[in-house]
This record gives sequence, C-alpha cells and structure tokens, in this order.
Amino acid sequence: MSTADRIVRHFQEELEQLKTRILEMGGLAEEEVRIAIKGLVERDGALIDRALAGDEPVNALHIEIDGRCFTLLALYQPMAADLRAIVAAVKINTDLERVGDLAVNIAEAAQRYAQRPPVKKLIDIPRMAGIAQSMLRDALDAFVRRDTGLAQHVLDEDDKLDELKTQIFRELLTYMLQDPSTIEPALDLILISRHLERIGDHATNIAEDVIFIVSARDVRHHADLQGG
Amino acid sequence: MSTADRIVRHFQEELEQLKTRILEMGGLAEEEVRIAIKGLVERDGALIDRALAGDEPVNALHIEIDGRCFTLLALYQPMAADLRAIVAAVKINTDLERVGDLAVNIAEAAQRYAQRPPVKKLIDIPRMAGIAQSMLRDALDAFVRRDTGLAQHVLDEDDKLDELKTQIFRELLTYMLQDPSTIEPALDLILISRHLERIGDHATNIAEDVIFIVSARDVRHHADLQGG
Repeated sequence: MSTADRIVRHFQEELEQLKTRILEMGGLAEEEVRIAIKGLVERDGALIDRALAGDEPVNALHIEIDGRCFTLLALYQPMAADLRAIVAAVKINTDLERVGDLAVNIAEAAQRYAQRPPVKKLIDIPRMAGIAQSMLRDALDAFVRRDTGLAQHVLDEDDKLDELKTQIFRELLTYMLQDPSTIEPALDLILISRHLERIGDHATNIAEDVIFIVSARDVRHHADLQGG
Repeated sequence: MSTADRIVRHFQEELEQLKTRILEMGGLAEEEVRIAIKGLVERDGALIDRALAGDEPVNALHIEIDGRCFTLLALYQPMAADLRAIVAAVKINTDLERVGDLAVNIAEAAQRYAQRPPVKKLIDIPRMAGIAQSMLRDALDAFVRRDTGLAQHVLDEDDKLDELKTQIFRELLTYMLQDPSTIEPALDLILISRHLERIGDHATNIAEDVIFIVSARDVRHHADLQGG
C-alpha cells in the first residue's frame, strides 16, 4: 500500500472512531436524562444521584471528542464532505455536552421535588422525556448514516414537545392558582418540562447539521468566498 | 510579492473579516437583549416588537459566518493557532445565535408581562441584563484580542448572575404565595431571569474557548492522536 493510501485509510479509521465516540457520548447523555426522569417519577434519591454523577463521563468525552476533531483537521486537512462532517462533529459535541448539563438541571429539580408532597401523577413529563430521548437518538443515527429523511423526522417531532410543554404549563398553573402550597414543586415541574424542550432543541440542532452536511454543495463555499 | 505571500495575506485578511463579522453579530445580539429588557421595563410594545424583529439579521449573520469558517478551513487548511481560532469561531457563532434566540424568548415573555398589572418595580432583572451584556461584550473582546485575563474575568462574573437569579426567584416566590394573581406574571419574570442566566452561560462558553485557543499547546494534539 502506498503512503498516500495508508494516510487515507488511517484518516477514515479516525473518522469512524470519531463517529463512534459521538454515538457513545449521545448514549451516555440520553441515559443521564432517562435516569434523571426515572428518579423524578419514582422519587428515588439514589437514581437522582446517579444522574448527577453521570455528567462527569459526558464531560470527559466532550474534551476527548473536541481533541479528536481538532487533530483530524490539523493533521489531515480534509476536504468537502469529510470537512463538513468534522465541523458538524464539533457542533454536535457541544450540543451533547449541553444535554448532559440539562440532565443535571433536571436531576437537581427532581431532588427538590422529591422533598415535598407530589403535585400530581406525572404522565406528560415522562412522555416529553421519551420524545426528547428518541429525537436525540434519531438525530445521531441520522448523522452517522447521513440520513436526511430521519433528520427531517427529528425536526417534525419538535412540535410535539412544544405542545406538551404548553399543556404541562397550563395544567400546573391551575394547580398553583387553586393551592399556593403547590407553587414551589409545580415550578420545578415547569422547569423540568423546559429543560426537556431544550434537549429537543439540541436534537433539532444536530438534525439541521445533518441536513446541511449531506445536502450542501461545494459550490456554495466558492460563492461565499467571492462574495466575502 | 510571491504567490505564497499573497495567499497568506489573503488568508489573514479573511480571518480579520471573520473576527469583524463575529463582533458585529455579538453587537446585534447584545442590542437585541438590551431592547427586549428596555421593552420589558418600560412596558413598550414597539420596543418589544423591535427586539423580536432583531433576530433576523442575527440569523442571517449566523449562516454567513458559518460559511466563512468553512471556506477558510477548506481553502487555506490553516494550522495551529489559526485553526484553533476558526474552530472557536464556529462554536462562538453558535453561541451568539442562541443569544439571539434567548432575546426573542425574553421579548415574548415581556409581551405577555406587559398585558397584566406589573408585579413589582424591576430592579434586579435590568441589573442581571447589564451583567450578561457586559459578559458577552468582554468575551468577544477577549476572543479578538486573545486576552485570557479578560476571559477569566467573564468566568468570574457568572457567579453574580447566579446569585441574582436565586434572589429574584425567592422574591417572586413570596409574591406568588401571598397573591395568586401574581403567579402568571411572576412566572414570566422568573423565566426571563433564567434566559439572562443562559446568556451568561453562552458568554462563559466563549470565554472558555478563548482560554483554550490561547493556552493550548500543539503537543496536546499529538498526544491525543497517539492515545486514540
């Protein structure tokens, strides 16, 4: 094999590893969200603690993936589709790190919520969490498989999260207005629903990046340069 | 001048233009926040509408800057400090776009808030906004001047936002518990304080990127490659 061929092959292996690490990070972040919501619903302090501790490996992967992207750009100077994939990976990495932070925010609110009598049986929040988690999973699958159809599906799902968030808000407002003792715990549930909505936003960002990297034509960048 | 010199010079000009555009985008996003908060405080529907409309130029710049970063990476294949600066620009661009979105969220809450009697005289929220705006400005100055001292100052300021947010929350909770008619407008103020906190988070992200691009040594990436 020629040196050039070996470099290309090594680059492709590194790029595959990068994608694998991103999937891994996505899996960890999603699990962190799942455990935080389970801890909320089951009022289980140990689960909540696990969600809080789960952010550390996500942060470690964030730094590692950032380094990998930078190394790939610096050493291989990739072009076109590969370059777009790596720039997208830099962004996706940031999105996933924020998802981990949001899982921590959810767990913190769950911790406060567990210290008071429950406001109501939680149905819509686990539903929101389920949608946000599949959006995240689908967005990452779409990235790895370069599947714009799946990415578009993620964008469509975002409306459901929005509707549920509004519905949760209205319902909890009713509780708060009727019984002021529910104000504090209800506020935590409202915050959690907003954290879940933001997790959906991050999945949406990833899906948009996928659509960009797959559909962008190189001509665009030459046009940019001439215009700049 | 040789062809190589001309390419280097053209690259440096493009990089300067990129930084200028980022400062411009930061200025627009900051102005959007300023107007949204002014609209909130003065209960001025026209100002709130201006903040809502202000997100369009921010979004247009977001796409343009993304294109510029991509072009610089693809055409010049920069190394070391320049590469780090461009990768940071990709992230900063994302942060600024979100700041614009948060200004819209603030304006939407201000719009609802203006339709009801005010809960209280707003003092801490404009103070939070002022801090968040200077953090953003300082973080971008730190990026352009590669000033890690200023970047560190941004990180330190974030605690102030956190304290004010907690204080605002406690005060509004008291209002809500005493008078349920304040629940809805007070919730909007709580949300606005959280949007401002997140603007501070984005300034913090930018400051962290600055510290990374200035202090990272290239050796790190070789270590990464060998480890990977």
